[in-house]
Amino acid sequence: MRVGLDVGGTKTDAVAVDESGSVTARVRLATGWGPEGVVRTVIDAVAALGSDGRADISAIDSVGIGIPGQVEPGTARVVHAVNLGVDELDLSAAVGPSLGVPVRVENDVKAAALGAYALRSAAGRAGSMAYLNLGTGIAAGIVADGVLWRGARGTAGEIGHVSVDPNGPVCRCGQRGCIEAFSGGGAIAERWGHPGAFPVRDLFDAADAGNPVALEIRTGLARGVAAAVRVLVLTVDVDSVVLGGGITALSDRLMADVNAELAASAATSPFMRSLRLQERVELLPPGSPAAALGAALIGSTAHSEERGALTHG
Amino acid sequence: MRVGLDVGGTKTDAVAVDESGSVTARVRLATGWGPEGVVRTVIDAVAALGSDGRADISAIDSVGIGIPGQVEPGTARVVHAVNLGVDELDLSAAVGPSLGVPVRVENDVKAAALGAYALRSAAGRAGSMAYLNLGTGIAAGIVADGVLWRGARGTAGEIGHVSVDPNGPVCRCGQRGCIEAFSGGGAIAERWGHPGAFPVRDLFDAADAGNPVALEIRTGLARGVAAAVRVLVLTVDVDSVVLGGGITALSDRLMADVNAELAASAATSPFMRSLRLQERVELLPPGSPAAALGAALIGSTAHSEERGALTHG
Repeated sequence: MRVGLDVGGTKTDAVAVDESGSVTARVRLATGWGPEGVVRTVIDAVAALGSDGRADISAIDSVGIGIPGQVEPGTARVVHAVNLGVDELDLSAAVGPSLGVPVRVENDVKAAALGAYALRSAAGRAGSMAYLNLGTGIAAGIVADGVLWRGARGTAGEIGHVSVDPNGPVCRCGQRGCIEAFSGGGAIAERWGHPGAFPVRDLFDAADAGNPVALEIRTGLARGVAAAVRVLVLTVDVDSVVLGGGITALSDRLMADVNAELAASAATSPFMRSLRLQERVELLPPGSPAAALGAALIGSTAHSEERGALTHG
Repeated sequence: MRVGLDVGGTKTDAVAVDESGSVTARVRLATGWGPEGVVRTVIDAVAALGSDGRADISAIDSVGIGIPGQVEPGTARVVHAVNLGVDELDLSAAVGPSLGVPVRVENDVKAAALGAYALRSAAGRAGSMAYLNLGTGIAAGIVADGVLWRGARGTAGEIGHVSVDPNGPVCRCGQRGCIEAFSGGGAIAERWGHPGAFPVRDLFDAADAGNPVALEIRTGLARGVAAAVRVLVLTVDVDSVVLGGGITALSDRLMADVNAELAASAATSPFMRSLRLQERVELLPPGSPAAALGAALIGSTAHSEERGALTHG
C-alpha cells in the first residue's frame, strides 16, 4: 500500500492506494503553518488514514507528498513553499524517521498531473495530457506514456510566465502580460481588491451584475487560460488539457468563458480550428483525489521513470 | 550507408552518412518545381552523391527525405508543400522503385531538429534541445534522449502560432500577434514590401540606416524570436534552443537583437533571469548539414523511436 498526501495552503488531502492504483481510504485535515506545522500535518495525516480502520498503516510501503513549492530534483528538499510558511525543508529527513518508510516529495502541480493521468488511464483514456493548474499561480504538468516531463532544470510547465500581451498587467515575476498576471488567483485577487474568502467568485458575481472592472478582469482570466491551452497544444501537442486548481471551483461559469475565447480564435483561424481545442479541454471533477493520488505514485515503477536527458542533461 | 536529403524551396542538400553517423559525402543541387520536379530532384541527388566517386551508392541502406510540408505520421505522404508546388505526393511510392531502398519522409524542421541534436551529441553535448526554425514560417522541433517529440497529432512545435500580442500584426493563420506574424520571413517580406532576393537583410540594412518602419519590423522580429525561446523553455525546459533557417544567415546581427530582447526581460524579472536564456540559445553554424543529416537518420535505430502515447494517443 502507498500513501499520498497533497499538502495545500489550507487543507491536506491524504489517500491510501492499493497495488492496482485504486484509492482505498481518504482523509482531509487542516494544514499546519511553517516547517513544524507541515511536518506535524504529514505525520497526523498518515495516522488519520489508519484510524477507524480506514487503512492498515502497518502495510505502508511509501509515502509521497505533493507540496506547493520548488522541489529539488531527486531530493525531498522543498524550497520557497511560501503559502505554507516554509522557506526550506527536507521533508524526508523530517518525517522519514517517524514514518519508517521511504518518503518522496514532488511539486504539487506535477503530482496532480501524474494523478490526473492515472485517473484517465484507469478510465481507458491513455493519451498524453497536460494538467493546467489554475490556483494562486498558473503552472502545468505534462505527462505522456505515464511519464512526467520534468525538463532540464525542473521548470517545464512554468507557462504562467509566458507573456501574451506586452501591454498587459505587470506580473509578480516582473514581466508584463504573463498568463499568470491575467489568470492567477493571486493576481486577480490583487487587481480586484475586494477582500473575501474566494475573490474570484466575488469577481464573477460582480461581472454578472455588470461591474465593468470585474468584467474586464474576468475576460482577462479566460483569455489567459485559453492562451495557456494554446501554448500547451502548439508546443507539445498533448491530446488533452485538464484544468484543475482552486479557480476551477467556478466550474461551468469558468468553462463558458474559456470556451468562448477558444471559439473566438477558432472562428478567425482555420489552423486554430483544426486543433479542436475545445474538445481537448476538460475540468478535473470537483473533489478529485488526483493530487494526493499522484503524490502516492511518485517513485512507483510505472510512474517514477523520468526522461534521462531532460532530468540529468 | 544512409542517404539524407533536405529538399528546400530553391536548393536540395544531400548527404551520405556512415554507420557512425558521420557525413562522408555531400552535394547540393537546385530543387525542381512541382511533384515531378521534386521526384526528379530526389533521384538526381542520390545519383549525384555516387558520381565522381563521392559515395558508393550501391551500398545505400535507406534514403530519408526532409521536406517543407506536412507529412502524415508513419507514412511518406507529403501534403501542402506549397513552396515546392506540391499539394500531395507519396514520395515513397514515387521514388522507391527507382531507388530500390526504403524511403522515409519527414517534415524538414523535424528532420533538422534530429540532425542538430545528432551533431550536438557527436560533439559531446547530450542535453535536450529545441531546434527553432526561422524561415518563411516559424516552427520548432523538440528532441530529448535522441527522440523527437511528435505530439498527439503531429503539431508539436507549431509555436509560430502562439499569439504574444493581441494588438500585433494579423497572421496568415487568421490570428493577431502570432510569433510568425512578427518573425516569419514571409510575414516580414510582406510587411516590408520591398522586393529583393533576401528581404530580411534589406530590412536590417534599412533599419541600420535609420528607416523607422524597418526599425519597428526589425524590433518585432527579435521580440518574436525571444518570445519563441521563452515559450520553449517555459513549456518543455529544453537545455538549449538552436536557431536555424534562412533568417539566421543574418547571424550576429540577428543574435544581437535577440540577446537584447532576452536581456531586457531578464533585467525586469528575476525569474526570467534565473532561466539564463541567453546562455541557452545558439545559432546552427552556417552551412551545417543538420537538415540532410537528420533526414538520413529518420527511422534509424537510435532515432526512429517515438513516444508511443504521443504518436498513437
